[in-house]
Amino acid sequence: MARILDGKAIAKQVKDELRQRVSQLRETGLVPKLVVVLVGDDAASASYVRSKSRAAQDVGIDAEVIQMPANIAEDELIRALERLNEDNTVHAVLVQLPLPAHLDTDRILMHVHPAKDVDGFHPVNIGRYATGTPLLWPCTTAGILEILERSEIPIAGRTAVIVGRSRIVGWPTAQLLLAHNATVIQCHRQTVNLREYTRQADILVAAAGQPSLIGPDDVKVGATVIDVGINRVGGHLVGDVDFAAVEEKAGAITPVPGGVGPLTVAMLMKNTVHLAEIHQREKEGFR
Amino acid sequence: MARILDGKAIAKQVKDELRQRVSQLRETGLVPKLVVVLVGDDAASASYVRSKSRAAQDVGIDAEVIQMPANIAEDELIRALERLNEDNTVHAVLVQLPLPAHLDTDRILMHVHPAKDVDGFHPVNIGRYATGTPLLWPCTTAGILEILERSEIPIAGRTAVIVGRSRIVGWPTAQLLLAHNATVIQCHRQTVNLREYTRQADILVAAAGQPSLIGPDDVKVGATVIDVGINRVGGHLVGDVDFAAVEEKAGAITPVPGGVGPLTVAMLMKNTVHLAEIHQREKEGFR
Repeated sequence: MARILDGKAIAKQVKDELRQRVSQLRETGLVPKLVVVLVGDDAASASYVRSKSRAAQDVGIDAEVIQMPANIAEDELIRALERLNEDNTVHAVLVQLPLPAHLDTDRILMHVHPAKDVDGFHPVNIGRYATGTPLLWPCTTAGILEILERSEIPIAGRTAVIVGRSRIVGWPTAQLLLAHNATVIQCHRQTVNLREYTRQADILVAAAGQPSLIGPDDVKVGATVIDVGINRVGGHLVGDVDFAAVEEKAGAITPVPGGVGPLTVAMLMKNTVHLAEIHQREKEGFR
Repeated sequence: MARILDGKAIAKQVKDELRQRVSQLRETGLVPKLVVVLVGDDAASASYVRSKSRAAQDVGIDAEVIQMPANIAEDELIRALERLNEDNTVHAVLVQLPLPAHLDTDRILMHVHPAKDVDGFHPVNIGRYATGTPLLWPCTTAGILEILERSEIPIAGRTAVIVGRSRIVGWPTAQLLLAHNATVIQCHRQTVNLREYTRQADILVAAAGQPSLIGPDDVKVGATVIDVGINRVGGHLVGDVDFAAVEEKAGAITPVPGGVGPLTVAMLMKNTVHLAEIHQREKEGFR
């Protein structure tokens, strides 16, 4: 039976540590501030934003939600982002995705200043993944690293197989594991004989958004299985991995829910504090 | 016996096509212009720059070499780059690497405007590899694609194994093959049991800079082997692949010299013309 990697417990650890770090920063006069820009009134997005605000409050981060109408003009949204870029009290800016269809997401994300880009989606930040020296990693990817490191699962020299190459999770996770010196196999929708690759994995990251994609025959005995999928099936949340069956074979596995999910919000907070600290250091450098 | 992928012949094709394209552009009043910035008097760098100038002249591109002293101050070099960024007659800017040790290469490359970054080394351009919609690919990587496409070697759904993850060749080549829907295995110095991976390759790219790294036992029968290595051994140029032995087993193979090398310079010219055309289109868009 696999060891269960308890994301909720790890997220709690991360937030406990952050609460202390933030309280020390506040003593020096630095109040980390995150602004979430929410366009439109999508119920799911609104609910995500609420949970981000709650988490911020929980660790002592100042969080502000800017609500914009669904029909906002692209240039108006960009001007709002530019005002946030210039506002020295704001350390982190997040544009809640998805945006309404009339807005060009790529163009808009270009206007979040790279030094405030808490999601790590600006091309300059993406480009830095390649150099192995990014300012930060996207929240879910950073959460996967947190799980592996706190569970003392080695990465360097191991075979990491990532199924899914989304810009938000799969691709940056492949880059992170490469930066930590895994040999990385990047699989996706056009991969032929997926199982041939997944069975090689010491660390298998399932991020395809497809329930029951990974069964016991797809996994090597003793592998670490990280399930990033969040799929709603018959009113229940399930991942991309057939948990009950794979648990028998894997060495360690994240459940859904309660695995990677809780880390994503915790890492948003950690990234915010990280950006605030960098901002502070740079300000001191100018004194 | 493998088919020999003749890089010299393919580079000639590319340049012949470019010569025609440039001559048509010149008729419309657009003279593609490349500026090469050469710092110091390294003999190898000077020789590379000369061959780039010659190739430019050969296809009708206006090439200028700006020679700077080895002890130039970083800010002075950056100011020179900024002048080139503002010069509307310049379409492509290349900073010949390596730079003298007192200069911060990353910082300097940040100051080549992304729209003139003919090498594709600006973080914004690197970031665009991830979205699968880059402005251009780095010259050697683009040359590998040219070889595969002109030799009608399919990429999508095939297994591509890249040995070496340098920012200049290995890593961007992995991203290019991923963007063309290969399943990509990225290997490097810390990969354990390299052979286990290379033997899976339908397309094997050797870019480690290590003579005789790839022998016949490392290759699947019928594989396409792209040798990017350029190593000087006993006065001869050899690649990373033991050509004579691997040729017996591979389906297709590039020689060294005469494989990827000639494409790198040809693709610098193709990238220059590409940037000039984009510049022209954008200018027309503003009319």
